[in-house]
Amino acid sequence: MAKGMLIVLSGPSGVGKGTVRQELTRRNSGQFVYSVSMTTRKKRPGEVEGVDYFFTSVAEFKHAVQSNQMLEYNQYVGHYYGTPRQYVEKTINQGKDIFLEIDVGGAIQVKEKMPEGVFIFLTPPDLKALRMRITGRGTDSATVIDRRMAQAVNEINLMKEYDYAVVNDQVTKAADRIEKIIESEHLKVKRVMKDYEKVLGVKHDYETNHR
Amino acid sequence: MAKGMLIVLSGPSGVGKGTVRQELTRRNSGQFVYSVSMTTRKKRPGEVEGVDYFFTSVAEFKHAVQSNQMLEYNQYVGHYYGTPRQYVEKTINQGKDIFLEIDVGGAIQVKEKMPEGVFIFLTPPDLKALRMRITGRGTDSATVIDRRMAQAVNEINLMKEYDYAVVNDQVTKAADRIEKIIESEHLKVKRVMKDYEKVLGVKHDYETNHR
Repeated sequence: MAKGMLIVLSGPSGVGKGTVRQELTRRNSGQFVYSVSMTTRKKRPGEVEGVDYFFTSVAEFKHAVQSNQMLEYNQYVGHYYGTPRQYVEKTINQGKDIFLEIDVGGAIQVKEKMPEGVFIFLTPPDLKALRMRITGRGTDSATVIDRRMAQAVNEINLMKEYDYAVVNDQVTKAADRIEKIIESEHLKVKRVMKDYEKVLGVKHDYETNHR
Repeated sequence: MAKGMLIVLSGPSGVGKGTVRQELTRRNSGQFVYSVSMTTRKKRPGEVEGVDYFFTSVAEFKHAVQSNQMLEYNQYVGHYYGTPRQYVEKTINQGKDIFLEIDVGGAIQVKEKMPEGVFIFLTPPDLKALRMRITGRGTDSATVIDRRMAQAVNEINLMKEYDYAVVNDQVTKAADRIEKIIESEHLKVKRVMKDYEKVLGVKHDYETNHR
């Protein structure tokens, strides 16, 4: 059985990563598994351990980081969030694809550890559209907007680290493109060669029996 | 405007390359252009210069090979056949994809000259099916069949030189897969980065005007 693939969807803040992931989730018929993050924040009512998050203590989280058990992590308003390596690897070894939707900083960390993954960068239709999304909230100062803009441009420069650039002009179109990328990546020779080598084994049997 | 891509479809003898190409032609709405081969054989009634083939003399063909104007060539029953480089490059520079359906030997020659192409290897569903296609003609001796089988296995080993392996279990499914590969390849960061760098230029204007 061929191994599953790690699929990483990332992109600049405000580009619509979450919405595209939700569209893929809506369509998804067991085609791939979503990664569950680990966090040190408290469980909220209705959240389920192992479904929404793996909840853990700060000490355990830090230990996981130090012992190289996290594919990526960051800190956000005083809490740690990260992707446990074991869950990802277990899924892949079961022959299932696993899907990560993370920020650009996280994706770069993951790429260092699992460069064989498929790294997809979600982009705005053009920078003007991105600027509208950034400035369009209407409540922020020019300085804040400038800073956000500069950050977005830096993030787009990071695109060079990725395999694919998917334009998020329409959520359904972006999801279509991502589905095609995943199907196409499964046909990569480097991913299927092992299966074919087994088939070539059949050939040796044939030749032996035949002579 | 982004450049077009070179798409090379190849695979073992008898795997059904021609049938899959015909299915793609049938569907194709100007999505890509088919490469026109050059040959030294005589024009047959109904054949059109520049559509079916570029017809040429042996001296001109040899000159083209020596002056590196052929992407690949071979000799078959006393005539030369090959792919003129200029036609391929012109099409790509016009922003159109060009599609080559050639044998494994030709594909390896093309890859040496244009490694940025997309190399697709068409495979039989399994070697047993390939063996049936090879032996199923029913008119050939065991020695001939053995030789064909050994050649097919060698050709499958060449798969390592390709980007994608597409199983030809059903012609329509194989064509679907190839269409997905082509769409997906157009989203590769390495292919679109130049377009994005232009967009990033817009950003510099924005910053200059804004301050």
